[in-house]
Amino acid sequence: MAQTVKVGIIGFGTVGAGAAVNLLKNHDVILERTNVDVKLVRIADKDITSDRGVQVPAELLTTSVDELIAESDVVVELIGGTTIAGDFILKALNAGKSVVTANKALLATRGNELFAAAEKNSCDLYYEASVAGGIPVIKALREGLVSNRIIRMYGIMNGTCNYILTRMEAEGAAFEPVLKDAQALGYAEANPSLDVDGFDTAHKAAILAGLAYGKWFGLEAVSVEGISNITQLDMKMAGKLGYRFKLLAVIKNIDGAVQISVAPTLIPANSMLGAISGVFNGVMIEGDTVGQTLFYGRGAGRDATASAVVADVTDVALNIANKSVRRVPAFRAGAEDVQLVKPEELFSRFYLRLAVKEQPGVVAAVTDILAKNQISISSLMQPENEAHDGQIPLLIVTHATKEVAMKAAMEEIARLDYVDSKVNMFRIEDI
Amino acid sequence: MAQTVKVGIIGFGTVGAGAAVNLLKNHDVILERTNVDVKLVRIADKDITSDRGVQVPAELLTTSVDELIAESDVVVELIGGTTIAGDFILKALNAGKSVVTANKALLATRGNELFAAAEKNSCDLYYEASVAGGIPVIKALREGLVSNRIIRMYGIMNGTCNYILTRMEAEGAAFEPVLKDAQALGYAEANPSLDVDGFDTAHKAAILAGLAYGKWFGLEAVSVEGISNITQLDMKMAGKLGYRFKLLAVIKNIDGAVQISVAPTLIPANSMLGAISGVFNGVMIEGDTVGQTLFYGRGAGRDATASAVVADVTDVALNIANKSVRRVPAFRAGAEDVQLVKPEELFSRFYLRLAVKEQPGVVAAVTDILAKNQISISSLMQPENEAHDGQIPLLIVTHATKEVAMKAAMEEIARLDYVDSKVNMFRIEDI
Repeated sequence: MAQTVKVGIIGFGTVGAGAAVNLLKNHDVILERTNVDVKLVRIADKDITSDRGVQVPAELLTTSVDELIAESDVVVELIGGTTIAGDFILKALNAGKSVVTANKALLATRGNELFAAAEKNSCDLYYEASVAGGIPVIKALREGLVSNRIIRMYGIMNGTCNYILTRMEAEGAAFEPVLKDAQALGYAEANPSLDVDGFDTAHKAAILAGLAYGKWFGLEAVSVEGISNITQLDMKMAGKLGYRFKLLAVIKNIDGAVQISVAPTLIPANSMLGAISGVFNGVMIEGDTVGQTLFYGRGAGRDATASAVVADVTDVALNIANKSVRRVPAFRAGAEDVQLVKPEELFSRFYLRLAVKEQPGVVAAVTDILAKNQISISSLMQPENEAHDGQIPLLIVTHATKEVAMKAAMEEIARLDYVDSKVNMFRIEDI
Repeated sequence: MAQTVKVGIIGFGTVGAGAAVNLLKNHDVILERTNVDVKLVRIADKDITSDRGVQVPAELLTTSVDELIAESDVVVELIGGTTIAGDFILKALNAGKSVVTANKALLATRGNELFAAAEKNSCDLYYEASVAGGIPVIKALREGLVSNRIIRMYGIMNGTCNYILTRMEAEGAAFEPVLKDAQALGYAEANPSLDVDGFDTAHKAAILAGLAYGKWFGLEAVSVEGISNITQLDMKMAGKLGYRFKLLAVIKNIDGAVQISVAPTLIPANSMLGAISGVFNGVMIEGDTVGQTLFYGRGAGRDATASAVVADVTDVALNIANKSVRRVPAFRAGAEDVQLVKPEELFSRFYLRLAVKEQPGVVAAVTDILAKNQISISSLMQPENEAHDGQIPLLIVTHATKEVAMKAAMEEIARLDYVDSKVNMFRIEDI
């Protein structure tokens, strides 16, 4: 006889509607696979009259979160934001109800508070959908790869950015018109900053880093740069060099300290990560035992996100049915404090594009400054067919070098008379 | 206070040594992440004196499997084969000990017997390492994607074959010399049949299909074809058409019946699966809710396999510590019997290469036979620079068509006077 576990969803927006549909439509396969009757009993929203374009029994709808929490064994928070969503989660946990959420911003900013409440009340708090949508990457990281020390992780975790970059590359287009078109098509928000400035990816990177290294990093631990500085010329030149631009989250363990950064990055075009195009996401996890692994799929959207939410709900339901709640707790801090890599220790190869006047001595002056800063050049290119208005691009790819040295050199180079002060500099990851 | 769970490994070969090293070396991170002391207490092998090139305390070694089973909470079977390995697993289960194995051949042939013993004795039986090595694809399929009806799965799951095909393509080389070189380099066995004839992949496909559709299919449910028929010319022509050869496992739900097949298949070169090169493995899983996902990593090798084995051991240890053994049982059959797709229902696009005499009427005769069999041509190519000894290749790519119609047409075509009787035909999957 299958045990019934009652599920309530707070937030009847896109993802809430998707999770409700998934729970109703695939109730039978979930029951068959788990022997647990995972039953949707309540959906709460301020607005329970608007048409969401999905079929849900009217009697499930309520405007009362308190009623929902009282009637549910598992509470799903899908309203988003970092204020009232957090209050509802705390209320559910304090009522002894386990919680599932997709709220990466809330976790990145108030994670420790929520985890403490889950622990105090002996509840589960799961959040697979908060990172890379439908891809079960949190489960992979903390269960499937549990026996690995994590060496590094790379993530393409924002579908909006990846869609824009894919189109810029394919069409030789500039950032602004592609962004506008993405907004018109519904792939980018009216206010695109959270996506294109890298903060959405940064929330996800902080979560992955926390799970890998046992310390819940806040957003302030992440160095963040968005994609709006990438020009058509940079795209073209990256392609000539065999690279491709991605908004890449980089999480690295460097001698026991952790680097967490999000930045437009050149990666090999023929790599698995390089092959991830359009709105798709992918996370590469390299462990000391397993080597390189990659997890790929849809990082957003109603149904993909619902898939991850309902997987978490089912995991909690299995815990409830087997009396093993907190078998895999929301977060477990490691024994030792983990430090961040100091900015002066950041080390990478770099792509550099200058606009220089066509006159003798320019290359010598630039390379001289690099040499003085102990920066070694891997390749250099001055493509004459890209000259415009007496200016020509000078492209330099460096060997691995300290970022502080690069920044010092860039400041010096930008002060040269015959160099345009706008210097474009991007990291390269050879994966 | 962390609970101790005692682990014994039967089989001190390559993977056994890897699992032992992983358990010893990363004992601290596993403890930190799970709060369970997952402790290696015994390793059994007939030979406990040969040097395995790994550091293991001598007192762990024993020649007595009985002693090992008596002293362990979790028994890891890593000796391989389908006879004595199965007996040891049954002995452990009947002693009430949960089991972890990497033995795909044993599971594919004696799965139902082993699952019944696990159920009878209320034990876990986990086998993540049996499919795609270090990639946590079984966990993804039955936990991370639990809320999905599985529409189809594609797997590149044999590193030896993928290594050979990658080199054939890169070097324009034939199958035999690359196989010989792979054998010399240790990437292929002295008797390569299990790999290159597709049976290793077929075992894995049967396991994935069983988990997806709730019926434990035997090897006899899988249609199997190996890679030895692919010629240099086929490789080259596939490339011209934008495709690439992979030994592809295909698992599809077609109107409630299941297709499980393994065959050399043309897939788009620019797809994520097409980008998987060398010894790496990848499994694409398409669910009705999540859409397409892909899981990629090392499919074999000491450490990658150990990563999956130790993840399973840790999962069992978590179950023991939380008194939730059989929370996710070894296998749960679905409510309804699942039928296989009948051969006459198999439906695909095809690539066809004939060697024809250069004389008038050949193309007309061939295309006439195809038309008579209701086979529609998508593209046709007769590359004159590939003519040799009065013969020229004729390449045909069809629209989706029934395989039985193709076979009938092929027989008829092979009987034509001016067509060489050796017709090469491969499936195309557009993914």
